[in-house]
Amino acid sequence: MRDLYHDQLDTIVDDLVAMTHSVKHAVSQATTALLTADAEVAERVISDDAAIDSAREQIEERSFEMLALQQPVAGDLRMLVAALRMVADLERMGDLSVHVAKVARLRLPAVAVPAELRPTIARMAEVAESMVESVAQIIADRDIEAAQALERADDEMDQLRRSSFRFMLSDDWPYGIEPAVDLALLGRYYERIADHTVSLARRVVFLVTGQTHTVEA
Amino acid sequence: MRDLYHDQLDTIVDDLVAMTHSVKHAVSQATTALLTADAEVAERVISDDAAIDSAREQIEERSFEMLALQQPVAGDLRMLVAALRMVADLERMGDLSVHVAKVARLRLPAVAVPAELRPTIARMAEVAESMVESVAQIIADRDIEAAQALERADDEMDQLRRSSFRFMLSDDWPYGIEPAVDLALLGRYYERIADHTVSLARRVVFLVTGQTHTVEA
Repeated sequence: MRDLYHDQLDTIVDDLVAMTHSVKHAVSQATTALLTADAEVAERVISDDAAIDSAREQIEERSFEMLALQQPVAGDLRMLVAALRMVADLERMGDLSVHVAKVARLRLPAVAVPAELRPTIARMAEVAESMVESVAQIIADRDIEAAQALERADDEMDQLRRSSFRFMLSDDWPYGIEPAVDLALLGRYYERIADHTVSLARRVVFLVTGQTHTVEA
Repeated sequence: MRDLYHDQLDTIVDDLVAMTHSVKHAVSQATTALLTADAEVAERVISDDAAIDSAREQIEERSFEMLALQQPVAGDLRMLVAALRMVADLERMGDLSVHVAKVARLRLPAVAVPAELRPTIARMAEVAESMVESVAQIIADRDIEAAQALERADDEMDQLRRSSFRFMLSDDWPYGIEPAVDLALLGRYYERIADHTVSLARRVVFLVTGQTHTVEA
């Protein structure tokens, strides 16, 4: 009985890691759709989000069932409560990838991002993706040090966002309102994806140490 | 012993309602700061957010303690798990009010929103505030019907946002890039506040009926 129980707990961790990989794929594909104006890829990101939503529901249901039936204590209780919250972060990251794909779709057949800004958006996406990648590892290995390093990656995201704003609001901005509005929102979406990885990493820290850290705005 | 336990559960509900009222105040004050370029009010929204964060921590800690020590089942278990998630929504709503206040602060002594757009932003804020108000009632009374009505209020928010976009992207937009970017982000912040109230209302539905509803993108 105890063995089945621990198998179930391990399965939940495996499923969280798998869900994180699906999210990484969504972020990466949404960026491809955005930077290459690929309608098919954009549609796929949008329709594949249902699978991320259903992964959330499944992990949620099983965690809740274990809470109700097994009455776990200490570390196992923390694990299940953390899982319930982590799936909410992961689902939002999927939604944010859908938002990116929808900006791509809205401007077809044009590329929503002006050529000059593509390297900045590409770098934002790279930072976000690598944060999602490392959070998958952090969840799998309960790696506290990697969790702390993630907060530094988040600083680069903030800098990229500030520099895109400086350009948009300068007198040299030649592209008009629409791309500026798109970029402001795209920057926000990638930044929020990064924020959610930091929040996920903090939940792992909580799991291991029992200490909560407030998630910042 | 059972009585103390139920008192503790009731206190958690009361504290969630109180936290919702603090969030409503933050939304309302942030809007005042935004529409009247009031530096003092903006600063107060930003500094008062610490109280919302600490309400979250306190409710979280007590819910977690009760989960660990009382091993609740059925409805009580659902209640505590719901509380742990609701505080996360409420904290984010506080953060979003801070974002609104920071846009106000950034453009001082000017008003960030052009005169012509103020009625739209004022109406967005009104919709958001009244949604927060009704979610406080929904939590206090476990009112399922009001929870369902909330989803309709959310439709007005979407319409307001679409109409502000139409204006910003029309040839008649005379205000340049900066206010357009501000408005795109402000619209997003109010929309997200509204989304979180819908998510809170769904958690109450889950509490009462045991049925989850997927939160939409």
